[in-house]
Amino acid sequence: MIEYRNLRVAILGGGSVGSQVAHLLLEQGAELAQRAGAGLEVVGIAVRNLDAQRDTALPKELFTTDAESLILGADIVVELIGGIEPARTYILQALHSGADVITANKAVLANHGPELFEAAEQVGAQLYYEAAVGGAIPIIRPLRDSLAGDRVSRILGIVNGTTNFILDRMDTEGDTLEGALAEATRLGYAEADPTADVEGFDAAQKAAILASLAFHTTVPLDAVHREGMTTVTHEQVLAARKAGYVVKLLAICERITDADGVEGVSARVHPALVPLSHPLAAVHGANNAVFVEAEAAGSLMFYGAGAGGIQTASAVLGDVVSAARRHVAGGPGVAESTHANLPVLPMASVTTRYQITLTVLDEPGVLAAIATLFSDRGVSVEGVSQTVRDDAAATLVIITHEASESALAATVEALATTPVVSAVVSVLRVEGL
Amino acid sequence: MIEYRNLRVAILGGGSVGSQVAHLLLEQGAELAQRAGAGLEVVGIAVRNLDAQRDTALPKELFTTDAESLILGADIVVELIGGIEPARTYILQALHSGADVITANKAVLANHGPELFEAAEQVGAQLYYEAAVGGAIPIIRPLRDSLAGDRVSRILGIVNGTTNFILDRMDTEGDTLEGALAEATRLGYAEADPTADVEGFDAAQKAAILASLAFHTTVPLDAVHREGMTTVTHEQVLAARKAGYVVKLLAICERITDADGVEGVSARVHPALVPLSHPLAAVHGANNAVFVEAEAAGSLMFYGAGAGGIQTASAVLGDVVSAARRHVAGGPGVAESTHANLPVLPMASVTTRYQITLTVLDEPGVLAAIATLFSDRGVSVEGVSQTVRDDAAATLVIITHEASESALAATVEALATTPVVSAVVSVLRVEGL
Repeated sequence: MIEYRNLRVAILGGGSVGSQVAHLLLEQGAELAQRAGAGLEVVGIAVRNLDAQRDTALPKELFTTDAESLILGADIVVELIGGIEPARTYILQALHSGADVITANKAVLANHGPELFEAAEQVGAQLYYEAAVGGAIPIIRPLRDSLAGDRVSRILGIVNGTTNFILDRMDTEGDTLEGALAEATRLGYAEADPTADVEGFDAAQKAAILASLAFHTTVPLDAVHREGMTTVTHEQVLAARKAGYVVKLLAICERITDADGVEGVSARVHPALVPLSHPLAAVHGANNAVFVEAEAAGSLMFYGAGAGGIQTASAVLGDVVSAARRHVAGGPGVAESTHANLPVLPMASVTTRYQITLTVLDEPGVLAAIATLFSDRGVSVEGVSQTVRDDAAATLVIITHEASESALAATVEALATTPVVSAVVSVLRVEGL
Repeated sequence: MIEYRNLRVAILGGGSVGSQVAHLLLEQGAELAQRAGAGLEVVGIAVRNLDAQRDTALPKELFTTDAESLILGADIVVELIGGIEPARTYILQALHSGADVITANKAVLANHGPELFEAAEQVGAQLYYEAAVGGAIPIIRPLRDSLAGDRVSRILGIVNGTTNFILDRMDTEGDTLEGALAEATRLGYAEADPTADVEGFDAAQKAAILASLAFHTTVPLDAVHREGMTTVTHEQVLAARKAGYVVKLLAICERITDADGVEGVSARVHPALVPLSHPLAAVHGANNAVFVEAEAAGSLMFYGAGAGGIQTASAVLGDVVSAARRHVAGGPGVAESTHANLPVLPMASVTTRYQITLTVLDEPGVLAAIATLFSDRGVSVEGVSQTVRDDAAATLVIITHEASESALAATVEALATTPVVSAVVSVLRVEGL
């Protein structure tokens, strides 16, 4: 029998993920020890309230409200509290004490990532966060290690399961936004207050994390352009399907060059049309997927279930084993380097393609007038399809070539005040072409 | 300006991948140094013949035929020769000299993996091989690290781009096997002698590598059941599409329990029907994808281009940066542990589902006779669909529940000699249901 050194693992947070992690560490201890090269001893689970939060299937003596003492005695600290405080303070305490930290906390990373990574580097500890984006889908490690010799040019991510469930249901079942949201709530995919999901706050945090990592550049959360998906209508989804697209809420991180030739990074979250032939179009239900384009690797996609409790626990345990191997091997952690420090460019620097749907008068010369209106503002039209309705009005669906946000906004403004245009029905960005 | 320690990188093999790796290391040296925390100096490229194999865009003085001297002076050795010898000898020399080794060589890993990993462990060096399976798709690192805290139950992989191109073309273009192979050859996807691809030898090597890693068990190449895809007919592909399936050549690695209750591991390569709703069904052209099922993580898929020169170079460089970071951090490599040592079970222990297509006489009692023939041999039928043809014969398509290879073989043998059965048209396994 091999004798392993024991590593002391402290768990902060006794919710669904914390309980799962504790159960797996206790039940699969022998197997995990073989893989890690060290025993993994759960020394405690810190909770706010001993009575309210305790999983009764776990040994009672593991629970404590004294998180700070638990942290000081640990080799590996697993932070599963969520939110910014006290999570941030605990992570800093753990790193300063020399412990490796594993976190699934996207909020604290998106808001305080640089501070936390710097603290880790100072003491030679490591901060792991595979579970913060995409649940069990390995995306952090591939970006940090597998693609370390490549240059990522773009990431298109479906990183929020709730909104993908809603949009997929609107597409495949013809449901309304309200109906699909109600179904998501009924099935437990949406929280009582779904704001963080449907308004894109959750996806924006993940976009900041992915962009920072992929481009070796600090991308602050407030530099992420964010639009939710509550404006997406039943009609837009049906029209998109007819035109060969699906509507997805995407987190988009790009290396771009702005109009002045400045190379930089952009991160944004908004609903977008994705061509049906794109691999992301086949991501159904509450699943997540991250599509990565890199110079040498080409296009890669990472797909799987989003962040359920057990999936998140899988990602956390993978990080625990990695941390344990590092402890056994010795040596400092790998610094989360932001050496590239590219400028983070505003949304106005982004160029993309647009689909604009208009109701217009069905009379001669209208198409020419509208085409001129586009070209006068520097927006080039790729294609137009027209449906004539029975009341002498027509619907025009226009797809543009790449255009800047500002040129597009000026065009839409002009369209809205042009007499031949009855209504600007819909303006949607097109991604993945 | 930061001063980095320089690490000496030796490249063995001056073919397409070797040249790409050298170019990227030379051109992106400063950027890679920042990511690696160390300079990466190409100290030489070993080739067999100085005149025949030299990329003239690379500095002439880098090339040498003296691989052994190059190895002895290197911190990191990148083996891109392929095949078993002299690759195996060079890898062992490099590891014994304390260098980390990066290889894209599936043949040497599938045939001599345990010897190589043991050599690495003895000296505390590390053997990296992300490029050996799936080109630039990160699959080795996710299996080794991200899923280290989980239990993989099954892997379904499309790991050979040539055969996926051929089968996809048969499906989407209605092409014959011969026509699709000719097109693959014309486009450079198939080699002049396509045996290694179409007979499943390439996929079997990758199955052995994936199964060994996923199940922490040495799975020798000769324990991988292998069937090629040259028996797949045009008619089978068309009939599959009509029934809601696509035909894919799959590498399947499973944790199974045999009829005697022995828990073990099985690895096999064969053509299989995949339901159109399965994510693997949407993997078109020469792309690769690995679908992983794990107890906690659920279903994950890793998708991307297969093994082109530049994609393989991306994976190799990711490993070079990982090796450099390890050198900078110090400490021994992580041993490729096969601690689980599960028994590797033969194909006879595998149970799966089957689709059997028969031509039968169209007369009363035939269906009952055939159903009895199945149930007498312990094969349970899930569904039957029947098409009556104009010559008083009918086509029966039968899908079974999970059945053992031996029960199925006995059933097929009985069918072939039953008077009411005119012909057993096709027998295909069904995976991913």
